[in-house]
Amino acid sequence: MLKQLPCPERIEINEVGPRDGLQIEKRFVPTEDKIRWIDALSQTGLARIEATSFTSPKAIPNLRDAAEVVNGIQRREGVEITVLVPNLKGVERALACDVDEINLVMSASESHGLANLRMTPEQSLAQFAAILDAVRAHPRAQNVFVNASLSTTFGCPFEGIVPQARALDLIARLVELGITGITLCDTTGMANPAQVKALCEAVIARWPEVAFTLHVHNTRGMGLANALAAWQAGITRFDAALGGLGGCPFAPGATGNVCTEDLVHMFEAMGVDTGVDLDALLEVATTLPELVGHDVPGQVVKAGKWDRRYAMPTH
Amino acid sequence: MLKQLPCPERIEINEVGPRDGLQIEKRFVPTEDKIRWIDALSQTGLARIEATSFTSPKAIPNLRDAAEVVNGIQRREGVEITVLVPNLKGVERALACDVDEINLVMSASESHGLANLRMTPEQSLAQFAAILDAVRAHPRAQNVFVNASLSTTFGCPFEGIVPQARALDLIARLVELGITGITLCDTTGMANPAQVKALCEAVIARWPEVAFTLHVHNTRGMGLANALAAWQAGITRFDAALGGLGGCPFAPGATGNVCTEDLVHMFEAMGVDTGVDLDALLEVATTLPELVGHDVPGQVVKAGKWDRRYAMPTH
Repeated sequence: MLKQLPCPERIEINEVGPRDGLQIEKRFVPTEDKIRWIDALSQTGLARIEATSFTSPKAIPNLRDAAEVVNGIQRREGVEITVLVPNLKGVERALACDVDEINLVMSASESHGLANLRMTPEQSLAQFAAILDAVRAHPRAQNVFVNASLSTTFGCPFEGIVPQARALDLIARLVELGITGITLCDTTGMANPAQVKALCEAVIARWPEVAFTLHVHNTRGMGLANALAAWQAGITRFDAALGGLGGCPFAPGATGNVCTEDLVHMFEAMGVDTGVDLDALLEVATTLPELVGHDVPGQVVKAGKWDRRYAMPTH
Repeated sequence: MLKQLPCPERIEINEVGPRDGLQIEKRFVPTEDKIRWIDALSQTGLARIEATSFTSPKAIPNLRDAAEVVNGIQRREGVEITVLVPNLKGVERALACDVDEINLVMSASESHGLANLRMTPEQSLAQFAAILDAVRAHPRAQNVFVNASLSTTFGCPFEGIVPQARALDLIARLVELGITGITLCDTTGMANPAQVKALCEAVIARWPEVAFTLHVHNTRGMGLANALAAWQAGITRFDAALGGLGGCPFAPGATGNVCTEDLVHMFEAMGVDTGVDLDALLEVATTLPELVGHDVPGQVVKAGKWDRRYAMPTH
């Protein structure tokens, strides 16, 4: 693989709204609405859609229809379907469906791991080894990519800022397990652009063979600035949620993911190719308040694109 | 003067909330509340406060008490008081008060100039020459710095994106007039980080003797990303409005300025010295909704600082 150069000309977007966006919603979004939404999203040029999570229906009631959603959506060439999987049981359920990727999850901090997954990072790593064995032994193993999301990579709502050395140590352990896709998650929007740029530069330099994704929340308004900093470090893969939906139910203070259409808008305005048809994406975004029953944080839907022109006022 | 290096270790903040923030507010904020607010702001380490605008009371009713505000505030060592001045008449009114700076304003685009000031850029430049003559002839000339804000530097809501060549041409005309402080204004949040970085790099390289300030609005969510890009280009002066108040009444689609406390928060988290006591600033920011009578967009007031820690949940 070629060494990634800073400021890539092309990036790809992983839409996590149907998973990270819906998991915190109080009102159950009907299965057929989820399917219609994902089908609409898959026509906008997104590289990947995280369609659901194969988690406990008790822990995340809104995603209790995981298999029905994955089995119900229309598959489209060039759009990968990924699903979050928190444990071994979830892997079996996920692999029974036609998914392109499973996205494992662990925390960089002990307390968030215990609060979110009831597992310390060490316990998560041990389970990842068992999960990888199960995936490799599965008949569909050749067709399923395994990604790992590292929650609280930059900061933990219980422990504070996570030192870069700790993040690098855990990423090294993931790489040793044979994982070749890793998502760096700023779960509760604690990261700043200097921190993001430094870690992204370090991981790209050390593991050029790994596909790193940045996952940020806009809790403190720094979502787009952090994405910009990661892109300057050479990151080409970004998680984002349509409308800026989202948040972790087990992380106090968590608010929405960086907003997909605002992220696409910024990069397209800069001349970076996101692969996404922004007009089509904005059209899907306008349907969100009805889908979830409340207003959403996305700003470009309200303001219009950067080149929007108004008529001159008549005095 | 030394050549500015990218990524400065220290920046300074020009609080424009009392001017740009209040000009679009429908409800008149009582003079004594404005004074109390500015007095509180001047104790937080801000370098400069744009206290009001000496404009027509008919055009901007909320700022009809300009002289009373400037004469009523407590002056504090190290905090400069600047005022917006749209025309020659305003200059006389401003210089009758004890201001450290007057901030002239013109538009980079003809249609916004006509809508906002009833002047084309050429007419504005001609008037600036007359204003500068008046200032130089005034007894207080030695103590008053003249800054010029260039509205719609990056984009105009009527004409679309403003080409960099046009912005550079107008900045050259301002420099020729002898103006040594210029604010690059993204009046309706149309700029993107690549555009901001390119223009800021160009102006710093060409006019190292001029003090350039970046003024951005967060209309499309790119406010902090644009500030980051300008800082990377070597910009050290930033306009911002507490709470993210603001907008131009004569620019359709305009929404709030980049939020002061969110901007200070980002740079302080990155280790950049803003000179501001963030805790004191956040305390003033919490009083804003009562001052203006509605919620404001600032996010750090709601989320807490980057290192905020929560107690672990008890299961």
